[in-house]
Amino acid sequence: QKVESDERALINVQEGLGFQKDSLFLLNLRFRIQNRAGYNNIRGDNFSVDMYDMKVRRLRLRLDGFVLNPKIQYYIQMAFSRSDMDLESGNTAQTLRDAIVYYTFSDKFYVGFGQSKLPGNRQRVVSSGNLQFADRSVANAFFNIDRDFGFFGYYTQPLAGRSLAMLKGAVTTGQGRNSFNNNDGFAYTGRIELLPFGKFTNNGDYSEGDQQFEPKPKLSLAATVSRNHKATRAGGQTGLVLYEERNLNSLILDGVFKYTGWALSSEYMQRNAANPITQNAEGLTRHVFVGHGMNTQLSKMVSRKS
Amino acid sequence: QKVESDERALINVQEGLGFQKDSLFLLNLRFRIQNRAGYNNIRGDNFSVDMYDMKVRRLRLRLDGFVLNPKIQYYIQMAFSRSDMDLESGNTAQTLRDAIVYYTFSDKFYVGFGQSKLPGNRQRVVSSGNLQFADRSVANAFFNIDRDFGFFGYYTQPLAGRSLAMLKGAVTTGQGRNSFNNNDGFAYTGRIELLPFGKFTNNGDYSEGDQQFEPKPKLSLAATVSRNHKATRAGGQTGLVLYEERNLNSLILDGVFKYTGWALSSEYMQRNAANPITQNAEGLTRHVFVGHGMNTQLSKMVSRKS
Amino acid sequence: QKVESDERALINVQEGLGFQKDSLFLLNLRFRIQNRAGYNNIRGDNFSVDMYDMKVRRLRLRLDGFVLNPKIQYYIQMAFSRSDMDLESGNTAQTLRDAIVYYTFSDKFYVGFGQSKLPGNRQRVVSSGNLQFADRSVANAFFNIDRDFGFFGYYTQPLAGRSLAMLKGAVTTGQGRNSFNNNDGFAYTGRIELLPFGKFTNNGDYSEGDQQFEPKPKLSLAATVSRNHKATRAGGQTGLVLYEERNLNSLILDGVFKYTGWALSSEYMQRNAANPITQNAEGLTRHVFVGHGMNTQLSKMVSRKS
Repeated sequence: QKVESDERALINVQEGLGFQKDSLFLLNLRFRIQNRAGYNNIRGDNFSVDMYDMKVRRLRLRLDGFVLNPKIQYYIQMAFSRSDMDLESGNTAQTLRDAIVYYTFSDKFYVGFGQSKLPGNRQRVVSSGNLQFADRSVANAFFNIDRDFGFFGYYTQPLAGRSLAMLKGAVTTGQGRNSFNNNDGFAYTGRIELLPFGKFTNNGDYSEGDQQFEPKPKLSLAATVSRNHKATRAGGQTGLVLYEERNLNSLILDGVFKYTGWALSSEYMQRNAANPITQNAEGLTRHVFVGHGMNTQLSKMVSRKS
Repeated sequence: QKVESDERALINVQEGLGFQKDSLFLLNLRFRIQNRAGYNNIRGDNFSVDMYDMKVRRLRLRLDGFVLNPKIQYYIQMAFSRSDMDLESGNTAQTLRDAIVYYTFSDKFYVGFGQSKLPGNRQRVVSSGNLQFADRSVANAFFNIDRDFGFFGYYTQPLAGRSLAMLKGAVTTGQGRNSFNNNDGFAYTGRIELLPFGKFTNNGDYSEGDQQFEPKPKLSLAATVSRNHKATRAGGQTGLVLYEERNLNSLILDGVFKYTGWALSSEYMQRNAANPITQNAEGLTRHVFVGHGMNTQLSKMVSRKS
Repeated sequence: QKVESDERALINVQEGLGFQKDSLFLLNLRFRIQNRAGYNNIRGDNFSVDMYDMKVRRLRLRLDGFVLNPKIQYYIQMAFSRSDMDLESGNTAQTLRDAIVYYTFSDKFYVGFGQSKLPGNRQRVVSSGNLQFADRSVANAFFNIDRDFGFFGYYTQPLAGRSLAMLKGAVTTGQGRNSFNNNDGFAYTGRIELLPFGKFTNNGDYSEGDQQFEPKPKLSLAATVSRNHKATRAGGQTGLVLYEERNLNSLILDGVFKYTGWALSSEYMQRNAANPITQNAEGLTRHVFVGHGMNTQLSKMVSRKS
């Protein structure tokens, strides 16, 4: 099983549906469905059910591949379930998640232009098909920097022995997915990842469990800094529209370690703004989500996937 | 022509577009388009036209097949035309109709989890591509139990000779398609179908005309009972949101007979609620659709489909 | 490269993805993505940026081909980006652009029923993938007659030598794409195109640049007349809903000339209405867009596409 990356098109496909015409054209068609039945118990003192949660949580259609030349890749992802279309901040269904075109200069360097995930906290970038729980953490919900539209760059630098560094950067609108009108304040995001023991098997640094049963220890340590200039929403790329523009600064530290089926991952996220509370003419307030959060997961694969 | 069933994925495809990789993966891609031009004359005393009705009535995309193993089947259906997205009860476009995963234990028994049609009145379960008229009956509009999200089970029991019984059941949210928040009241639906003369050719009990020109008489008689506990909408799975929760009880009786191109089908539907009228703080009322309805159709195929 | 026509299904495919089963079935699957980063400077006196415009401008999925018989063709186009779903006149996402079925009587004559582009000004009918600029002209925005639902006919008449005439006509609802309720006033559109020097190579009269480097001069001159009876929107098929119905008349004259990489195209559009201002009970007004506009483009291809 090839692990999907949300930062690259798949051009070496072993699963799903791939259509290829020489090296002129490749289209992979994949979809993902997540049906869910659960319940929430909010009070801690008894276990009666407060609310059931049964729905189609995710239904995604993913098209990726290349056109004209394997160096020119594209990646499109659409979401069709009601829980997946950003209806919390309006009632216009937002189908489109990713729509980006990549150009690959070399094995070490590629750039993208379009809408995609920012190189933010690791759990956010892990594709929802590679999560261990049904949803991401609460900390992620408040402090992730989500998707945005703009220019992306990805560079890999080999270091001594098998170790390597990855540099990722983006200059984007700062207003998140499918935003309509853009002001003149952009978001600048930079991320560095250090892999002292070399690459993970099969992109394992961006899947949660150690499905590969890494025979040797693998580690990735990473830091992201993001400045969202003249942000208009409570979380920058996400959240309610603020009454005034604010400048947001985010710091993210995360890491993952995998070895023989064990996986330990952890991430710390922090967001600051000079004056987080905004006010309109009637005196109503909306505030930037400032603060910090942390999420740690430890897991052990019990048997190899057959 | 294989008759599509809305209660099962197609895994034996003769039409449309099928992609298969050994017994690991099958994807059928089918779409259906229904363009319509008509007019409505509401007054009975003359035939001047009150309103024209010209539009793309249905545009559906259907993906089904299996993954990993022919026992694990999926069925996804999406609708893209404006008349097909539940805009009567809000202005959020609802693309998703069906998204369900089935597990097949044997030829006689399979279960499903996800969003699909409830085993309600026969005309509702017949796929829109197999109807004889452009729309379903008015009785169906008021009393059908539509689609819902939850657990489904289908069991076939052979009886004496060629006769057989089918048992269908579902435990679902009771709030219909793409509902957001679920309370702790579920809907319980049970249906029994008796086929004294054996199976219909090519699933003919779930298409309206006798396209198969059944050489021997075939009959299906069925009854559905459904209890929707703490329903929040006027028709349970459909309709406006009520001001208070109500418990709804539905009884459905239907049958179809086919022989040498003739088809006779009939259905009776009834819905009850203890106190059908709900009221809000301002004294406005909304009521449960209670009452009963009936629909009967007789048809004769004039020639075999070439 | 085959030039897509927005007035016909593609049944001779050299690019994209085509699935065929003898002469029983053909499905072409194509998609188009347009990401955009730009800025608008509204004041003329300096070049500071007033607003950036960065977004996924277009994401289209196109399905076309034939069913049962190559004479019965279909053409479906859906749009998934936020800028492409008619959100200016409401917040219901409109995915569906084209959904039409064609029947071909002969090489000279075919008819269509469904939703498609009206035979209006040339630039509007040119597919967005064949434009030279990222968007169509401002004149087009105000005076084009866009898409509509109804009956379409296309007839080609050979004349002396290589010259020919094309006649196109449509009777449609007059209320534009995905309209809900239709009154009893229709839109009647007729267009004539004269090609004195014969057909353009590869449908070049409906692409903007002369990618074909026409070895001999080619010319198309055309006129469209459209009457929209009892129109309910400011531009007939587009725009805000008017407070009263109006009858709109449109006249369009356009032409294109191509030769050895040079292309000159021009179009003139005019819209009239007897009493363009409508008023509601509160005295608010909304008006029909009346007036005229013109758009001319000259281009030279600098080198052949490799």
